[in-house]
Amino acid sequence: MPENMNEAMLQQMKIIKRGIADLIPEEELQKKLINSIKNNKPLRIKLGLDPTAPDIHLGHTVVLNKLRAFQDLGHEVDLIIGDFTGRIGDPSGKSETRKQLTEEEIISNAKTYQEQIFKVLDPKKTTIHFNSSWLMKLNLIDIINLAARYTVARMLERDDFAKRYKEGLPISLHEFLYPLLQGYDSVELKADVELGGTDQMFNLLVGRNLQREYGLEPQIALMMPILEGTDGIQKMSKSLNNYIGVNDDANEMFGKIMSIPDTLLRRYFELLTQVPSEEIEEIIASMNTGDVNPRDIKVKLARIIISQYHDEEQAKDAEERFKQIFSKREIPDEMPEVSIDVESIWLPRFLVDNKFAESTSAVRRLLKEGAIKVDGLKIEDENLSLENDAVIQVGKRIFVRVIKK
Amino acid sequence: MPENMNEAMLQQMKIIKRGIADLIPEEELQKKLINSIKNNKPLRIKLGLDPTAPDIHLGHTVVLNKLRAFQDLGHEVDLIIGDFTGRIGDPSGKSETRKQLTEEEIISNAKTYQEQIFKVLDPKKTTIHFNSSWLMKLNLIDIINLAARYTVARMLERDDFAKRYKEGLPISLHEFLYPLLQGYDSVELKADVELGGTDQMFNLLVGRNLQREYGLEPQIALMMPILEGTDGIQKMSKSLNNYIGVNDDANEMFGKIMSIPDTLLRRYFELLTQVPSEEIEEIIASMNTGDVNPRDIKVKLARIIISQYHDEEQAKDAEERFKQIFSKREIPDEMPEVSIDVESIWLPRFLVDNKFAESTSAVRRLLKEGAIKVDGLKIEDENLSLENDAVIQVGKRIFVRVIKK
Repeated sequence: MPENMNEAMLQQMKIIKRGIADLIPEEELQKKLINSIKNNKPLRIKLGLDPTAPDIHLGHTVVLNKLRAFQDLGHEVDLIIGDFTGRIGDPSGKSETRKQLTEEEIISNAKTYQEQIFKVLDPKKTTIHFNSSWLMKLNLIDIINLAARYTVARMLERDDFAKRYKEGLPISLHEFLYPLLQGYDSVELKADVELGGTDQMFNLLVGRNLQREYGLEPQIALMMPILEGTDGIQKMSKSLNNYIGVNDDANEMFGKIMSIPDTLLRRYFELLTQVPSEEIEEIIASMNTGDVNPRDIKVKLARIIISQYHDEEQAKDAEERFKQIFSKREIPDEMPEVSIDVESIWLPRFLVDNKFAESTSAVRRLLKEGAIKVDGLKIEDENLSLENDAVIQVGKRIFVRVIKK
Repeated sequence: MPENMNEAMLQQMKIIKRGIADLIPEEELQKKLINSIKNNKPLRIKLGLDPTAPDIHLGHTVVLNKLRAFQDLGHEVDLIIGDFTGRIGDPSGKSETRKQLTEEEIISNAKTYQEQIFKVLDPKKTTIHFNSSWLMKLNLIDIINLAARYTVARMLERDDFAKRYKEGLPISLHEFLYPLLQGYDSVELKADVELGGTDQMFNLLVGRNLQREYGLEPQIALMMPILEGTDGIQKMSKSLNNYIGVNDDANEMFGKIMSIPDTLLRRYFELLTQVPSEEIEEIIASMNTGDVNPRDIKVKLARIIISQYHDEEQAKDAEERFKQIFSKREIPDEMPEVSIDVESIWLPRFLVDNKFAESTSAVRRLLKEGAIKVDGLKIEDENLSLENDAVIQVGKRIFVRVIKK
């Protein structure tokens, strides 16, 4: 093998391995890369997508960024919308999260996915598949042949199954079929590499084993870490409300990124940006020595991320607005206005009716926490007498000017 | 409910319950029978058959006799040839017994089955089905819907699965699908009762549960005991060589039935004949008091069974022949003859070459056991000097005349 080919492979490996959690097995990926370089043939990189949750946050972009890195190295991406399972839902009726979707919902979700995903991926090197197109053609013989490739004991090794079995919680038989079907997608597409979170390792290895059973070259399983949310502790998730959505507006993104703990900075740079590793090391070093304020590093991170999901101008505007409010602790120039013609208002109802708060009980809690200010002064009383116009501030970032008629 | 209807039901129940191992649940069968009598609508009685082993022995006829009893009560029988599983064999390649069968083999086996089965069943009240005709139409959605009705834990309750799982022996996932498919046969046919051996209880109950899941009236599971072989200890089976085949010739049947232990007589009468229960009690009582020799009861049993699988005349001939040989300890009139032109023979080779014994070591063992006689005298020597013609007797029933040239 020519020396420069090996070097090209090692360069790719370095980029591929950045920030990953696990790669099984590394030697085989090296071989695949060398063949790819030698024959000028891109590798096929697979990612499976759940068709039920089209709202993508930065936690999801960790794998997307890695796919993008593969694309920048010349490889091609196969995105698989798992519409088959979406079409049938959970026939046992036990899972609330697995509702049956209509054809229209699936198409609409897929469209939303594309819009969000192509903020990261290169559409020219991306193919989108719906796995129902091949799974619906399987008959009982095909399915028995597929099921014969795996044992009950191996399936029960999957963490969640093992736990449920041990605790006496029911596992319906069809749940054992899903990992096989997902693995069969890899057989169908002859994937070279499949990406997923660390929680997907078992499923990715099913795909690898099934390919081998079907006489194909087995895929590499590449696991990305699960990204912590803005709290720095739990995994980023919509239900924990510690997420940054790719569709969040620029100001929202800016504020959320500024709120992350300093300890998350290296990880966010590594997993959410394409900033070269060496540069990241310098940035973190400058923070650790005290030469640079972590706040300035967060501003830099926010600028990069907002430029990617919106544009540079919006990033700059958001930065200006943020600095005005928080760095200088001033009231912003512009804010929503509400006119009233009464002498006093009951704050919980007022804020809920005008969509500044979700519920009256949430407002009461905020009042107790001292998170509501009127003209810059914390208040505790639920009733507010209005003699003149006033600015009500809820939490850090919500402002409303009340105009007395 | 009219009194006579209830009585008719109870009469049927008495016949149905004779000799059974278990009936789940009895009350539901009573209800089904009453509806059947009321609406003059026969019940549908299901039996599943394995398409790989068409050689039927009396052990298999235990369920067939019960099916016949149902038919004599006016009900109808659905025989299901499980050709679907036969067509695919064992895809994991682990089971020697589950070989893939060709279409021709399946048709040929089914034909052999019919010939043998209709020695017991009434063809006018029997429908033969091939389960591939509906199973091949299932698609992946149907199969997932089916698999969702059962849990992994319940499947692992089946004795053989539980044992294998506990011992770390592999269970391929498709093996979990087979009981479901067999149960689905009951859904497809809307069976009222399914018959099987006690080893089939789990599978019969899967059918019952699936029917309920699919909104049908659940079937009754009726288990027949496993018949002991002629040794009186182990279950009748071809591989244990303790079986009486329905295709055995009359003499073979007679000899085998005469060889069973006395303790099996009640069971064989109950499970293999339609002799009324009261009469069986009298027969057994007469034996227990010593009024009747058990040998005479075996002759009666042999006559009944041979009359069913051959005819009365053959039964009589076999009886005559047997009495001549065994009861009177005489040498039969006719036997094979072998001419030799040497002075002495090595018995093991001689008997093997002329197909009277399977191996020389078997002959040596028989000699040691005193099971070989020459002209009525036990011998132990492997070498036999021949001065005149002689009759060699091997075991109880093999005779050969050696003619000195």
